Amino acid sequence: MTRVGIIGSAGRMGQALAEAITAAGHEVSGGIDQGGDPLALAQASDVLVDFSAPAALEFNLDAAIHAGIPIVVGTTGLAERHHWLVDAAAVSVPVLQTGNTSLGVTLLAHLVREAASRLGEDWDIEIVETHHRMKVDAPSGTALLLGEAAAAGRGVRLAEESVRGRDGVTGARKQGTIGFAALRGGTVAGDHTVHFLADNERIALSHLAENRAIFARGAVRAAEWLLGQEPGRYTMPEVLGL
Amino acid sequence: MTRVGIIGSAGRMGQALAEAITAAGHEVSGGIDQGGDPLALAQASDVLVDFSAPAALEFNLDAAIHAGIPIVVGTTGLAERHHWLVDAAAVSVPVLQTGNTSLGVTLLAHLVREAASRLGEDWDIEIVETHHRMKVDAPSGTALLLGEAAAAGRGVRLAEESVRGRDGVTGARKQGTIGFAALRGGTVAGDHTVHFLADNERIALSHLAENRAIFARGAVRAAEWLLGQEPGRYTMPEVLGL
Amino acid sequence: MTRVGIIGSAGRMGQALAEAITAAGHEVSGGIDQGGDPLALAQASDVLVDFSAPAALEFNLDAAIHAGIPIVVGTTGLAERHHWLVDAAAVSVPVLQTGNTSLGVTLLAHLVREAASRLGEDWDIEIVETHHRMKVDAPSGTALLLGEAAAAGRGVRLAEESVRGRDGVTGARKQGTIGFAALRGGTVAGDHTVHFLADNERIALSHLAENRAIFARGAVRAAEWLLGQEPGRYTMPEVLGL
Amino acid sequence: MTRVGIIGSAGRMGQALAEAITAAGHEVSGGIDQGGDPLALAQASDVLVDFSAPAALEFNLDAAIHAGIPIVVGTTGLAERHHWLVDAAAVSVPVLQTGNTSLGVTLLAHLVREAASRLGEDWDIEIVETHHRMKVDAPSGTALLLGEAAAAGRGVRLAEESVRGRDGVTGARKQGTIGFAALRGGTVAGDHTVHFLADNERIALSHLAENRAIFARGAVRAAEWLLGQEPGRYTMPEVLGL
Repeated sequence: MTRVGIIGSAGRMGQALAEAITAAGHEVSGGIDQGGDPLALAQASDVLVDFSAPAALEFNLDAAIHAGIPIVVGTTGLAERHHWLVDAAAVSVPVLQTGNTSLGVTLLAHLVREAASRLGEDWDIEIVETHHRMKVDAPSGTALLLGEAAAAGRGVRLAEESVRGRDGVTGARKQGTIGFAALRGGTVAGDHTVHFLADNERIALSHLAENRAIFARGAVRAAEWLLGQEPGRYTMPEVLGL
Repeated sequence: MTRVGIIGSAGRMGQALAEAITAAGHEVSGGIDQGGDPLALAQASDVLVDFSAPAALEFNLDAAIHAGIPIVVGTTGLAERHHWLVDAAAVSVPVLQTGNTSLGVTLLAHLVREAASRLGEDWDIEIVETHHRMKVDAPSGTALLLGEAAAAGRGVRLAEESVRGRDGVTGARKQGTIGFAALRGGTVAGDHTVHFLADNERIALSHLAENRAIFARGAVRAAEWLLGQEPGRYTMPEVLGL
Repeated sequence: MTRVGIIGSAGRMGQALAEAITAAGHEVSGGIDQGGDPLALAQASDVLVDFSAPAALEFNLDAAIHAGIPIVVGTTGLAERHHWLVDAAAVSVPVLQTGNTSLGVTLLAHLVREAASRLGEDWDIEIVETHHRMKVDAPSGTALLLGEAAAAGRGVRLAEESVRGRDGVTGARKQGTIGFAALRGGTVAGDHTVHFLADNERIALSHLAENRAIFARGAVRAAEWLLGQEPGRYTMPEVLGL
Repeated sequence: MTRVGIIGSAGRMGQALAEAITAAGHEVSGGIDQGGDPLALAQASDVLVDFSAPAALEFNLDAAIHAGIPIVVGTTGLAERHHWLVDAAAVSVPVLQTGNTSLGVTLLAHLVREAASRLGEDWDIEIVETHHRMKVDAPSGTALLLGEAAAAGRGVRLAEESVRGRDGVTGARKQGTIGFAALRGGTVAGDHTVHFLADNERIALSHLAENRAIFARGAVRAAEWLLGQEPGRYTMPEVLGL
């Protein structure tokens, strides 16, 4: 029986994780939140799953390194320096960092990359997402993940092409850019659509999560897969063999 | 035969207007653009239709006043002072100013107002629109018109409740606000959706324009209707008897 | 404390009802399924909620009549003779029969009726719904309820205008008809969209249920409201004061 | 200058083709409709484009064979015997038969095939399309083309798995089937969505045509490409190098 430690256990994802871990036949070794001790949790676990906050990431990665166990990082809102921390940790232990742990989103990103690589720059790319009213950041981690997939398919860098929070007198759309828009309300678990818009026709590729169970189930699947890997930084497509 | 003068005749709407005027059995008395003389046009016309730019509004209203003829203002991106100019002109001549001249959008606004008046503040309101890549402002005039309808239904002022260009660390959604998001790409004539999002359920009310013909047709219908009115400021719902 | 009896207690709705009854501060007096005794349940209850099968309706209504208590009927797939049974029972006790107990759907039906009454027959009406893979009938009760609202708004009888299961060489669309289409798959709790399609523009009014909690909550609200009514046949809009 | 002959020239597609042929720098060698002489047209042309009716297909293919020129067949509603005719003609001349000539739909079919090959049978597939009120058959040729792509991705035969015109007491959804639904109304040029529905999550891949120009443009591109090919039966993905 695999012992899975939950970081961010009091949040909605934490509760969904606890159910998914049990449903998959594993054991919840424990759960911590702000103020908790990640090292103690890591030492009682075979693998960690972190859906907490960017500010806690460094401590959580350190805990995984000191305990010598893999860690799944599903926390959103990471800045560039957080990615450096993930890279550094991945030298010592297996780390999977992702903006979205669902099977469906992982496949969608694969399709977005494929579409972007086939369609020319005369197809404008716009990404819109909807999440529940409690979400504090925008765009969602998943929207950015889809934007990275589109940029990769097109052979450009997302940071140089992304347009966010369009408002006011913006001028005409600049060719090659990738737009982001965010809606917030209700209890929406997560809707994402990537639009490709050309002259007189449009393609839309979308994913709708009915609830958080799919993210928890995917995170547990990622944790299981990480247990058999060498130290390194991994992604969801690798878990699914895409 | 009614003589209709087009201000903003070289733009896409200008061309659609010329077709709609002829199709309705009227005559295009002429068309002007930046640098043209609105007064000469007004004097040769029975009614003006203006789909040009906010900067030209004052001159266009003056032309209507001096010629003593009605004017339909479909220009978007108007600021508060432009609305004062419209109010002032409406003392002398019939003026219909609207963010959208289509029958469908006018009905949609009516439904949005009704929904907003029936649903409590536990239903979050979010408005998203998509327009072609050449559009230079956001949100669209129609999105704002729909936001005004929602605010009116709820008995609040849109200016105090609107949230635009959501991006970055925004915090949780503030109850009672009305969000706006804008997508740009391809040749989209205009899609608008008003979302009402509550716990575990959502309502969406939307309009899709396949091309600009509907706006031109509605503007011509408004122009016909204005010809029989006293001086004053009018709206599309009045044209349609809503 | 109100004692609510559940008919169809083993189904998904039955479980959601039990939670909603408790959450609203009431008591579940008991639950029965195929082979159970509705009269015994009715005698132990203040009100019945029936989400079972059309074949059981007659016995369930009889139980309510003999116990002299109100009954909410949310069972779908009713034929004309079931409606006669409901009418007959409503002479003796308060009965609320509905294809959908959610607040959102009830409001949507109100908006559909309003739209249909304002738009001419040059706006074609099409209703599409999606439900989980276990649903055995099509169209859904809610789709039919929305179709009735559209027909009422237009002043026609749904039975004479409905077109279902369009397939093969159908010929051009007959003006004035109301079309129905059904999708089935996954665990979709219930999506419904009413489309109004005209020359060059479209309006779509839709509702999405994230899970069954909204139906259970609405059914409990209907049960509470029925307790204070005279014998008669009631509808959800009356519960909500629409 | 390439001379392109149009079969079905009086229909909406015929007019769009004439514009697209001229816009691409080619010449319209002539156009025929019911009662016209396809052989005379073929002898005056370098390539034929046929958007007429299944009943005329045999004569049109014969004309191409006798003139020794390629033919693009975009006619929808073909039965199995029409496909035999296409196969037979392809022995003598290059023939491209397709349910949809747009670049976007061709890419969408490619993505649908990819998605269906990656997702297990626990993802239910449903295809829904909307077309204008004059369309006489359902499902659309494009919907069937997308269904074939899904079936190919999954390694099954569409004819054995398709479920059409769902209505009445259908029973629970049978795993592995591919459902079709058709909406008709207004002037919709063509909307198609392929849904993949699993437990708690959904993926939707869709295409929206704003007008017929895209089909005409794609048909002209196919005609240009066919001119350089050996006799044989070809498809749109080959034109686009997918």
